[in-house]
Amino acid sequence: MGENEIWDGTFRQDGRTCDQTRAIKIQRGFTNAAGSVLISSGNTVALCTASVVEETPSWMKREGETVRGWLTAEYRMLPGSTKIRKPRQDRPDGRATEIQRLVGRSLRAVFDAEALGPRTVYLDCDVLQADGGTRTLCISGAFVALVDAINSIRASLPDPARYPLRDSVSAVSVGIVQGTTMLDLCYVEDFAAEVDMNVVMTGSGRFVEIQGTGEESTFDEEQLGSLLALAKRGNAHIAKLQREALGGAWPFAE
Amino acid sequence: MGENEIWDGTFRQDGRTCDQTRAIKIQRGFTNAAGSVLISSGNTVALCTASVVEETPSWMKREGETVRGWLTAEYRMLPGSTKIRKPRQDRPDGRATEIQRLVGRSLRAVFDAEALGPRTVYLDCDVLQADGGTRTLCISGAFVALVDAINSIRASLPDPARYPLRDSVSAVSVGIVQGTTMLDLCYVEDFAAEVDMNVVMTGSGRFVEIQGTGEESTFDEEQLGSLLALAKRGNAHIAKLQREALGGAWPFAE
Amino acid sequence: MGENEIWDGTFRQDGRTCDQTRAIKIQRGFTNAAGSVLISSGNTVALCTASVVEETPSWMKREGETVRGWLTAEYRMLPGSTKIRKPRQDRPDGRATEIQRLVGRSLRAVFDAEALGPRTVYLDCDVLQADGGTRTLCISGAFVALVDAINSIRASLPDPARYPLRDSVSAVSVGIVQGTTMLDLCYVEDFAAEVDMNVVMTGSGRFVEIQGTGEESTFDEEQLGSLLALAKRGNAHIAKLQREALGGAWPFAE
Amino acid sequence: MGENEIWDGTFRQDGRTCDQTRAIKIQRGFTNAAGSVLISSGNTVALCTASVVEETPSWMKREGETVRGWLTAEYRMLPGSTKIRKPRQDRPDGRATEIQRLVGRSLRAVFDAEALGPRTVYLDCDVLQADGGTRTLCISGAFVALVDAINSIRASLPDPARYPLRDSVSAVSVGIVQGTTMLDLCYVEDFAAEVDMNVVMTGSGRFVEIQGTGEESTFDEEQLGSLLALAKRGNAHIAKLQREALGGAWPFAE
Amino acid sequence: MGENEIWDGTFRQDGRTCDQTRAIKIQRGFTNAAGSVLISSGNTVALCTASVVEETPSWMKREGETVRGWLTAEYRMLPGSTKIRKPRQDRPDGRATEIQRLVGRSLRAVFDAEALGPRTVYLDCDVLQADGGTRTLCISGAFVALVDAINSIRASLPDPARYPLRDSVSAVSVGIVQGTTMLDLCYVEDFAAEVDMNVVMTGSGRFVEIQGTGEESTFDEEQLGSLLALAKRGNAHIAKLQREALGGAWPFAE
Amino acid sequence: MGENEIWDGTFRQDGRTCDQTRAIKIQRGFTNAAGSVLISSGNTVALCTASVVEETPSWMKREGETVRGWLTAEYRMLPGSTKIRKPRQDRPDGRATEIQRLVGRSLRAVFDAEALGPRTVYLDCDVLQADGGTRTLCISGAFVALVDAINSIRASLPDPARYPLRDSVSAVSVGIVQGTTMLDLCYVEDFAAEVDMNVVMTGSGRFVEIQGTGEESTFDEEQLGSLLALAKRGNAHIAKLQREALGGAWPFAE
Repeated sequence: MGENEIWDGTFRQDGRTCDQTRAIKIQRGFTNAAGSVLISSGNTVALCTASVVEETPSWMKREGETVRGWLTAEYRMLPGSTKIRKPRQDRPDGRATEIQRLVGRSLRAVFDAEALGPRTVYLDCDVLQADGGTRTLCISGAFVALVDAINSIRASLPDPARYPLRDSVSAVSVGIVQGTTMLDLCYVEDFAAEVDMNVVMTGSGRFVEIQGTGEESTFDEEQLGSLLALAKRGNAHIAKLQREALGGAWPFAE
Repeated sequence: MGENEIWDGTFRQDGRTCDQTRAIKIQRGFTNAAGSVLISSGNTVALCTASVVEETPSWMKREGETVRGWLTAEYRMLPGSTKIRKPRQDRPDGRATEIQRLVGRSLRAVFDAEALGPRTVYLDCDVLQADGGTRTLCISGAFVALVDAINSIRASLPDPARYPLRDSVSAVSVGIVQGTTMLDLCYVEDFAAEVDMNVVMTGSGRFVEIQGTGEESTFDEEQLGSLLALAKRGNAHIAKLQREALGGAWPFAE
Repeated sequence: MGENEIWDGTFRQDGRTCDQTRAIKIQRGFTNAAGSVLISSGNTVALCTASVVEETPSWMKREGETVRGWLTAEYRMLPGSTKIRKPRQDRPDGRATEIQRLVGRSLRAVFDAEALGPRTVYLDCDVLQADGGTRTLCISGAFVALVDAINSIRASLPDPARYPLRDSVSAVSVGIVQGTTMLDLCYVEDFAAEVDMNVVMTGSGRFVEIQGTGEESTFDEEQLGSLLALAKRGNAHIAKLQREALGGAWPFAE
Repeated sequence: MGENEIWDGTFRQDGRTCDQTRAIKIQRGFTNAAGSVLISSGNTVALCTASVVEETPSWMKREGETVRGWLTAEYRMLPGSTKIRKPRQDRPDGRATEIQRLVGRSLRAVFDAEALGPRTVYLDCDVLQADGGTRTLCISGAFVALVDAINSIRASLPDPARYPLRDSVSAVSVGIVQGTTMLDLCYVEDFAAEVDMNVVMTGSGRFVEIQGTGEESTFDEEQLGSLLALAKRGNAHIAKLQREALGGAWPFAE
Repeated sequence: MGENEIWDGTFRQDGRTCDQTRAIKIQRGFTNAAGSVLISSGNTVALCTASVVEETPSWMKREGETVRGWLTAEYRMLPGSTKIRKPRQDRPDGRATEIQRLVGRSLRAVFDAEALGPRTVYLDCDVLQADGGTRTLCISGAFVALVDAINSIRASLPDPARYPLRDSVSAVSVGIVQGTTMLDLCYVEDFAAEVDMNVVMTGSGRFVEIQGTGEESTFDEEQLGSLLALAKRGNAHIAKLQREALGGAWPFAE
Repeated sequence: MGENEIWDGTFRQDGRTCDQTRAIKIQRGFTNAAGSVLISSGNTVALCTASVVEETPSWMKREGETVRGWLTAEYRMLPGSTKIRKPRQDRPDGRATEIQRLVGRSLRAVFDAEALGPRTVYLDCDVLQADGGTRTLCISGAFVALVDAINSIRASLPDPARYPLRDSVSAVSVGIVQGTTMLDLCYVEDFAAEVDMNVVMTGSGRFVEIQGTGEESTFDEEQLGSLLALAKRGNAHIAKLQREALGGAWPFAE
């Protein structure tokens, strides 16, 4: 896709071309949790912590599961994360429920439950500042926190030679705004989008989850193709940043 | 995809080939609600009712919206719908929340909120018997109930010449089971699937929503292509059945 | 009571005489639950399913009960069951709580908890269409579903010679409308009634439960007598229909 | 009923004959609420307060009701009211829901909503000590508190000549214990009863509500007759005590 | 503090001087609970019951605690306890939560958990009439109920020679109203107070808890000194009344 | 207090003397909320945001209040803030309720509700890392965030010459650990403390709130004196840091 033929640099408010993500920063060890990552993409900022609890969920115990572990995620937005304060809710609302299920599923796709042993990793994604793309940013940040958390218990894994993750995972949003395909939508772009798609991929370029939806609109196969191409580009970029951030903690062979 | 080269008719428990849906039945007017559709695909049975309430949601009123209407959906499984009784839950659980948001979004993609006027259509999808594919079946059934409900108030629409729906909507599940791409998965197939995808489309063949997820697995672009091809075939079949069921109530030009 | 001396056939909107029930239909096996009965009386329609769970409630276990089983009921109205959509509620509201307790008590009156063995039967009564008399109709339908559910586990009962039910149970509403005693009130009649009474009886003609209430009104002993006489007539009719519906599944000796 | 032929005075633990209530005490003005009655029958003790709120429920306002008032009741047992402490519950449980609906209905049967004017009377029944018969005792106590509360606003009633109550209301329990019909059952009697019936009546001897239920048992017409006869006797006694307690506050003509 | 230099006896509505409490009455054995105390200070009236449950909380069991017991408190206001009816709340509101935690902490300060053995004492404080100072009155009443409850199980304590309480506990409110320091504030005084302080003390004159707060105001060290002096005086008075009320049940040596 | 006579620098795990706070850092503008302060004391870290909502609470509107504004606080601990993950709770638990009420009261003590105008300031205190003293740290941080938030709407205050705060507010914990009085307790110290006291003060040295509690223990007047002396020292230090952090934004005259 040759978007620089179509757009000049001023099209997006922050001067990006359509195939660029915002500036993404990944800070490990933000707090003392086993994994604690402050991740930002432009003005969207999330704290992703990974905590290991030496217990499996009650439904696993009821099923007599004693070997495998579990991985689950929770997602919330802090009240001060939005311009207009977002009231706290007793329980995750519909949107938060949907997102935290997505985060959990995405990481479980590369997760080896037996290699973890009978314990649970909680991925807590708390959005500190929201400007679009919070769910995909949380997936990308949660992966890094998850690696740090697993590394912190590496000595006590059932089989030291079997790492509980098979691949890295990242996610990015793509969308069609006024007919143009764009990568990593900020809030105003997302709000204006006709089609919004979140694409979760592995470091090796396979799809984990695709959620594309016409926002009071529909889309055809060609548009789908453009969106997926852009998402692959974005995810490759993020995967590279995850690897750089993890440095020597990177758990996979070259 | 030439699945009959690969499979003999006995592969799927009910003798279907991989590109066939189960037998789908649509019964309109099951109860007295404005729209009331009993829809089944094999052993999956849902009652989809559409009710018109002459009021808009409180958040619309707060925003000063006086012209547009709203369309929303709720989804539940009756306790007796599963072999092992499913306890009622105080609120929709995470899965039901996700599904009812999907049903609502899918129908709103073809919905003209201004043409409805300041009222709300509720789509209530209650699964009476569950054997896989309940969410997609509910979307297909809800569309038919929605048409009946809108037709029941046609005389009081703001502009009789402007129908509140732009197109029909149907949905079907596809998946990869033991490496094979299949249409309209029943429960045992769904449970065994590596990849599960729900595809919502319009009668004119455009995508409304794609939700594909690797179930503790991932998938590549070629597999995605096969899945989408099969989903288009399934949706075309269901769209035809919807049209037949609605008969003279079909609201769109030929 | 000689109501045809007082009323002409046109008095009740559907042409019934005062001592007639509406047309009652009982359809067994509506879904795959152990017992699944679609029952209707005129425009009131309910789905009564009976599910057997091989576990007793936690309060029974706490009390060290290991021999007896339990039978409980839940009652809800689907949102589309009423002309004006009835919003779903997080928990059963006061009325639903009252009704589901009545349904459970009524069936437990003929229930032999020891003969069932340490398991639970859930009777789920979901009203699909409401036009008065839903609680009594659910009792009558639940009995039939209960028989089917028990028969489905007959081989695993503690003592094959000891059937877990002692008698059949049915229920009907009676009331006084504008001074006239009537059987099986539909919604408009119920709404207009000065006195409303639900009478649950066994197939052998004994009372299980009587709930009579003056609706912002009171009643005397003579009126009570007329109401009970009519209720006996109605219940005898329903008991006969239950027996016909069950056919060879009828568990009691002639 | 000649129960003294059957029983000697020692049959009931407290030496009563079968047609006697326990000692009933009614203390008005226990606290400063508009109506505040401490009522006891033997070891069952309840505080019934009646509060007038100058507002009608939101559902009445929505219906445009501006003339009529409302009367509602709430029922709870204090944790220390039972030998084994009864944990507080977030919401009224099924039993409390059923009871508070009964209390409200019972008083509304003699209530003139228009004569009260657009305000609400709340009847709060809190059981301080429970030994059977709490629901009927609360009805009898709530009536006295209600009169005091209404009298406290008598000057501001829409029409001073139209009193908002048409009659007095009392209630008593009757039951069949080991084949014997008894009045005003205490807890151990209630627990052992085959049939339990709560009968609410007016001071002039008309029925307000009859709730009779076989406790895992059934009953016939003759037993019903005996129970009602005893209930009439008990209610006449309580009505007399209510009148004595109210003295000059008694609102009805001789 | 020389408040009679400043105030004449008519300053406070009920004729008290600033260093007097209201008339305090303590009635033991109000109901049949193990401890049941009706306590009042002027128009503030509370029922404090103490119940012993032969079980420890689940969190203690999880921690493997098998020797120590637990003591906890609950606080509520009955709806009729205030002039304007106080609606019941599903759960304790913020204020009630704060109060019941204070009551529990206060009694636990003199509580010997090991001497009680592995059981739980519940202190239920239900305000029947509220006129200021409910939380401190409940602490003073709960102590008396607690002694009665412990005495009722004295024979089954692990070590008869080791009483589970080390000292008595009482509480009183003090405040600064229009610049004047006052003891045991009634509602109108509390409402007008610039500074409000609740002081919990032992019978031997040590502090258990001090909660002083400027109500949209602040205070200095000298004012703090005056408040504490008055609180000591009030608590000494209440401790004497507690001892008189308990008489021979008083558990401590002279 | 001459604690260096008693303690050598190694007594406290972090080498502090008993009258030292931990290292306190205040970072303004951490996110884009009107006020957004990341504050830490040693390993305790909280994000305090202040958001202005142009609306007053519903209870203020009901009371017809149109001139004054409101200030309220919410407190939560993120799941990853503690070594052992702290599960999210539907609602603030008892401890969080108590804390958020304290934070709100503390800031309201210096708050001029009329000077703010009819709007609400929300102070959201989310603990990112917990090592003792979270509630006092949140008060100190919330004050700084509150100033930034008020300054952001300074142009629209009812009277530009009347600042909505009268003084600064800070808070610090003090306690007695193994007989020694200490300032700013970290978690292990707090856990071991016999007496724990939170002291909220103004910048000018007046008390806002004192909450001292014997943890299963009691304390005397001399100990109270030592604790308050230390708290004054700590609060003076924090007040100085708040002023430095605010720099030119400091709203009060020298």
